[in-house]
Amino acid sequence: MFKLYYSPGSCALASHIALEEAGGDYEAIRINFGAEEQRAPEYLAINPKGRVPALVTEKGILTETPAILLFIAQSYPQAGLAPLDDIFKLARLQAFNSYLCSTVHVAHAHGGRGHRWADDPAAIADMKRKVPETVGACFELIESEMFEGPWVMGETYSLCDPYLYTIARWLKSDMVDKAKLPKTMAHMERMEARPAVKTVLENQFDS
Amino acid sequence: MFKLYYSPGSCALASHIALEEAGGDYEAIRINFGAEEQRAPEYLAINPKGRVPALVTEKGILTETPAILLFIAQSYPQAGLAPLDDIFKLARLQAFNSYLCSTVHVAHAHGGRGHRWADDPAAIADMKRKVPETVGACFELIESEMFEGPWVMGETYSLCDPYLYTIARWLKSDMVDKAKLPKTMAHMERMEARPAVKTVLENQFDS
Repeated sequence: MFKLYYSPGSCALASHIALEEAGGDYEAIRINFGAEEQRAPEYLAINPKGRVPALVTEKGILTETPAILLFIAQSYPQAGLAPLDDIFKLARLQAFNSYLCSTVHVAHAHGGRGHRWADDPAAIADMKRKVPETVGACFELIESEMFEGPWVMGETYSLCDPYLYTIARWLKSDMVDKAKLPKTMAHMERMEARPAVKTVLENQFDS
Repeated sequence: MFKLYYSPGSCALASHIALEEAGGDYEAIRINFGAEEQRAPEYLAINPKGRVPALVTEKGILTETPAILLFIAQSYPQAGLAPLDDIFKLARLQAFNSYLCSTVHVAHAHGGRGHRWADDPAAIADMKRKVPETVGACFELIESEMFEGPWVMGETYSLCDPYLYTIARWLKSDMVDKAKLPKTMAHMERMEARPAVKTVLENQFDS
């Protein structure tokens, strides 16, 4: 059985949805960021980075969303969450997820975690002010160049979809103009109609 | 034949080394960042993000270093650049590369590309000032928690090694105290003794 450590609404939601979509044998364990549990010695022993997600497996612990997602797809190949037999299509999927983690999530993080990269409160405020522009530009690029529809990679639902959905949920707090992102908005609705997504959202937010 | 678009010394170096290590059939094409060639319509048609690397294949174009690296390993499995038959070990490799792209490269980028996340020159200067601390902390975590030695993943050279080497080359300009990073420094020397690395460095910097 896998153990997934998450904080509600964090990027760990992507791995949580993927596990549920795969019909995986897992337990989801909440880390309370409000109480700084991610900085507690017990959690740092699991993930020295003090972040979520972390996936505990029989062989050891995994971190970083793109790596965990691919591991889930490879652990449950029958779920068809990635084109495991087509190395080019798999690379396109990985490129999309890599863009989400290294550019889109990072753009978002400048809104609430600017202290990672600056100390001056005025600098942190200036970063926060720019978030609607930077995150908005990322999503406009996704819509114009990457999103194939109805799912990210086209006709087939894949690991890209829960990850995009997870970050798109932050658009409201990032104050991005959603009217410019019709594909993303329709994708969110499509995601929220999926039973696995409903189950995970209830688990993360209603318990 | 693959075409790899790169700028000398950029993160594209990792993919360039991997192609050379794999004995790949490729051509390396230089993009002159000084002349803003990455923003020219000709290049934006290849990579709308205006970044390197981009790998042109017979099936289409790939971007994002972790995705390109895995694609190279899967294209040339005989080179043994990734544990393709062990999904847990592969996930550990992917997690390391994902950390490099989403956290370490991003910390570095605040030194020279702060304008991505702020507009105020004072904010951009404050970001730049913090780079030695943030990049240094990333490498200390790599040495204490991730680097197995003599190569990143242990006894076997893998996709993690050219990527770590590529980012470690920036430590000097990032003004990180190298004396605190003995494993990284020894790894750089080990890398620079490899024929493939020598070949690529000569190609990127001497022509």
